[in-house]
Amino acid sequence: MSINMDQLFEVPPGLRNVVVTETELGDVRGDEGFYHYRQYSAVELARTKTVEDVWFLMLEGRLPTAEERGRFVAEVAPLRVLPDEVREILPAVAAAGVAEKPLAGLRTALSVLAAARDLPPLWDADPARRKADAMLVCAVTPTILAALHRLRQGEQPLEPRDDLSAAANWLYLVTGNEPTAEQVAAIEAYLIATVDHGFNASTFTARVIASTGADVVSAVAGALGAFSGPLHGGAPDRALASLDEIGTPERADAWVRAKVAAGDRIMGFGHAVYRTDDPRSLMLREIAQGLGGELVDFAVTVERTVVDVLAELKPGRNLYANVEFYAGVVMERCGLPRSMFTPTFAVSRVIGWTANILEQAEDGKIIRPAARYVGPPPPAPID
Amino acid sequence: MSINMDQLFEVPPGLRNVVVTETELGDVRGDEGFYHYRQYSAVELARTKTVEDVWFLMLEGRLPTAEERGRFVAEVAPLRVLPDEVREILPAVAAAGVAEKPLAGLRTALSVLAAARDLPPLWDADPARRKADAMLVCAVTPTILAALHRLRQGEQPLEPRDDLSAAANWLYLVTGNEPTAEQVAAIEAYLIATVDHGFNASTFTARVIASTGADVVSAVAGALGAFSGPLHGGAPDRALASLDEIGTPERADAWVRAKVAAGDRIMGFGHAVYRTDDPRSLMLREIAQGLGGELVDFAVTVERTVVDVLAELKPGRNLYANVEFYAGVVMERCGLPRSMFTPTFAVSRVIGWTANILEQAEDGKIIRPAARYVGPPPPAPID
Repeated sequence: MSINMDQLFEVPPGLRNVVVTETELGDVRGDEGFYHYRQYSAVELARTKTVEDVWFLMLEGRLPTAEERGRFVAEVAPLRVLPDEVREILPAVAAAGVAEKPLAGLRTALSVLAAARDLPPLWDADPARRKADAMLVCAVTPTILAALHRLRQGEQPLEPRDDLSAAANWLYLVTGNEPTAEQVAAIEAYLIATVDHGFNASTFTARVIASTGADVVSAVAGALGAFSGPLHGGAPDRALASLDEIGTPERADAWVRAKVAAGDRIMGFGHAVYRTDDPRSLMLREIAQGLGGELVDFAVTVERTVVDVLAELKPGRNLYANVEFYAGVVMERCGLPRSMFTPTFAVSRVIGWTANILEQAEDGKIIRPAARYVGPPPPAPID
Repeated sequence: MSINMDQLFEVPPGLRNVVVTETELGDVRGDEGFYHYRQYSAVELARTKTVEDVWFLMLEGRLPTAEERGRFVAEVAPLRVLPDEVREILPAVAAAGVAEKPLAGLRTALSVLAAARDLPPLWDADPARRKADAMLVCAVTPTILAALHRLRQGEQPLEPRDDLSAAANWLYLVTGNEPTAEQVAAIEAYLIATVDHGFNASTFTARVIASTGADVVSAVAGALGAFSGPLHGGAPDRALASLDEIGTPERADAWVRAKVAAGDRIMGFGHAVYRTDDPRSLMLREIAQGLGGELVDFAVTVERTVVDVLAELKPGRNLYANVEFYAGVVMERCGLPRSMFTPTFAVSRVIGWTANILEQAEDGKIIRPAARYVGPPPPAPID
């Protein structure tokens, strides 16, 4: 039963460990608890650099000089402003109930942008144009997400401020308040640490779509869809919901045992790749402890309990807190409402998606695997 | 340089011939020039059945009885009507210039629909709900595409007619005229023949997104993005543009030689899987010849010339007319404007995408391959 004349390749389910492409963007080393962006430890970048530095790094392959940083910041600041076509349609989009679903709202607005601006297919665009479109999408994403959030609250969207960094501007656009330096540093670290993380399903989706030569927004829209999937991970509000459910530290033990007994997944723990501590989790715990507060202490206690109980009940599985667990705690302490946790993840990850899209566009080959037909043999007679 | 502790699998570039999944939906046999939907020759279905029959077949795994067909037609007819949230936003979407890009317009409107209706993730939905959402998306897709087209022309969208079949209703919604029986039969055959076709990049994209457990629209929106890519194929207007460029039959030979010499792709010829005549092309040629007219005669002459010249210039490559070549001719003869050629393809293919999405949802495992890092070794010191 041949699909074509060539040999078919058998691979593990879900393409697990199947090498789809080469990349210079980064690497996740699950057994070492280490990941990097273009050679630089992502956690070290998060501790020491700005979102704009890392954004430049992903695009250009090196960290910017002071002068390059200044030019880059000046270049992206005007791109944050909502394009008129998007600005005009957002109230109607919000009124249709779309703001309740921020990722679908972002997909809606970016689709309008792509069509209104007639974004060229990657296949037809030169590298400079591709990069310009990618930068526009990344710069306008926070503005769209924050505008939909405020419209949903019955408030007017705020204009982005070009005197604020990307991280500070994000907190300002969502909350309407100028954030403290401590909050900016915390969110900056979170955003940098979540820019990219290997070949997760949304990044892979973006590259599959980019491999057809479609435009940047088509690829980002697909990534947003994959990203919204419950199996993708990356929903920091779910972990916080678990903390709510547990309520008090002494209930943590019984809670996790009941979850495991019921066969439920425990949000915020375990990862497809890491077999040791998730380096993002370690950093975010430290940041959360720096911000301090009752919620943070509670989260630390719950983490310890859950890890211990999981080690007892599921020996050898090496289940640790993942990026979701402390992300929600950090975001809550920075004044972000829970509905904006996943959008905050999208604000940074879109930088990683577009870097992957640009890299895939250089490749120029379509990603087109095969399926094996396992139904009854054709042809069946038609009455 | 390990990504994790397990072995990495080397596969051909672009995942060519790599088996990602098993399917009961169909199979393309490139060396036999044959493809089928759930055992039934797709070309035979196209010659003898209705879109609704094949839609039912894709969903249920068997052709409907007369009674089942009646129930199914009655069930989908009301789903064609534009939901209020979409109806209200479409004029603003069209005004933003989105109607010039029908696939982005459809993605915009479906994203609004998904958010406004709060479509559940596949992961959370039971099979009946998944199927209902898939049917809604397929039923409303033609209405959205036709409405955007008419708004772009400065005309009011038409209400779908429940006394018309899916194929006839599509022609009516776009053209505003009740089509002839001959036109309906031709478009019906085209739509059926393009419902599904193996693991093309858009179908694969839909399944990757579905594998994360995201909602049906997230998966369809990603598929639309991949579908819009120039390397995906499926743009019947491009082949017709080639006919325009050639102009007269005697210029065909020189035109194709010039194209080949310049290294340009020749739209409407060659296919990733077929190494013999594309069975869709053979059927569509016959249908085009049944419709008759000068354009059809011209296309037949050009096809013969191009195939002969390609056989001479690229021996052993087996380049034949593909589904694009006669599709445009058939659609033009059915009164569809060129801007609606690709949308017509989307109207049928969304049935195939959603069938694939539903099948993937049954699987429940995420599709998550790997990339190999090939940049300089980390960690690099950060200044």
